[in-house]
Amino acid sequence: MRDTYRAQLRETMADLARMVDLVHTALADATTALLTADLPLAEQVISKDRLIDELAEELERRTFSMLARQAPVAGELRTVFSAIRMLGELTRMGDLAAHVAKIARLRFPEHAVPDNLQDNFRKMAEVAGSMVADASTMLRDLNVDTAGHLAAEDTVMDELRRDQFRTLVDGTWTHSVEAAVDTALLGRYYERIADHAVEIAERLVYVVTGDDPV
Amino acid sequence: MRDTYRAQLRETMADLARMVDLVHTALADATTALLTADLPLAEQVISKDRLIDELAEELERRTFSMLARQAPVAGELRTVFSAIRMLGELTRMGDLAAHVAKIARLRFPEHAVPDNLQDNFRKMAEVAGSMVADASTMLRDLNVDTAGHLAAEDTVMDELRRDQFRTLVDGTWTHSVEAAVDTALLGRYYERIADHAVEIAERLVYVVTGDDPV
Repeated sequence: MRDTYRAQLRETMADLARMVDLVHTALADATTALLTADLPLAEQVISKDRLIDELAEELERRTFSMLARQAPVAGELRTVFSAIRMLGELTRMGDLAAHVAKIARLRFPEHAVPDNLQDNFRKMAEVAGSMVADASTMLRDLNVDTAGHLAAEDTVMDELRRDQFRTLVDGTWTHSVEAAVDTALLGRYYERIADHAVEIAERLVYVVTGDDPV
Repeated sequence: MRDTYRAQLRETMADLARMVDLVHTALADATTALLTADLPLAEQVISKDRLIDELAEELERRTFSMLARQAPVAGELRTVFSAIRMLGELTRMGDLAAHVAKIARLRFPEHAVPDNLQDNFRKMAEVAGSMVADASTMLRDLNVDTAGHLAAEDTVMDELRRDQFRTLVDGTWTHSVEAAVDTALLGRYYERIADHAVEIAERLVYVVTGDDPV
């Protein structure tokens, strides 16, 4: 492997990790805004989503010019392809965090999440946050040994979502239809953030090992 | 513009259009399965989603080897980058059509969509289907004059989703919480399919004109 390629790979993945860190903060802040009905924090997450989009555009341009400057070899192409797809995933993750914040804003000064689901959402956010942090570490260390850990966390996320559905449809729901709709959509947003983290890890496996993402 | 590049661009975009057509069929069938509680059709949409994923993988490999064979010029790189992103959008659109079919399957022999929202969902599916068909035509003709039409259709989609929310939360909802949750998620799936169609059109504007997607 050419040294310059290795250096470039590290740089590209470190750039992506910076973006993952912005997503991690957005997710944590959106969750706090949601669970504590914190309007200024919700507004902040929503307005800062633009920064994530701008960073994605900057990184796409940089990847593009890196490729245009030299005739890339197969490994470099793989990196570039994967980086482009990861940028797409990360942009969506930022959007999803902003969607969580928008529901918090929409229901303010009420709490969007009913008392009996606060704990469920706290756990969902913890698992999603941990998955995003794992993805960041993997990108920085170019170490994919923990890819299996993300898959296990995603299973926990799916279980939390099922718990949530059971609470919604077991016939004991005393909250409004509106709260049920918010819960279903919020659950979907957290689950999708987790899915994107898994997809980033799978893409990184492909970059580092050349194995097709499964 | 080099002739070979022009030919390659046409070929790549025509390949993408084939994938759009598969998504169009999946969406139409999923909607029929949903609105008529047709279990075999729902199963068919779900199992055929694998074909869309496989075509995406094949097209990604082909794009990859096209790039590896020759030193690409800027316009070619733009095409390849955009094709990779569009493949991601289309794979998700296929997944979303399958999600619609899965809700139809889950509620069979019941209808997932209550009577008073059947018309709303029929319109949503019509608008989404028309947007997907527009994207296919644009990709085949490399003509982006109709990109504005997609944006207008997306506005109609947003209005239909707002109508749906009003029906859910205006205090007259007599159906189950489960039906409300299904409605919210189904509405989200159709809206996301429409969003992806808009993103494909914007990417194509970038490919054809070099203008940044807005």
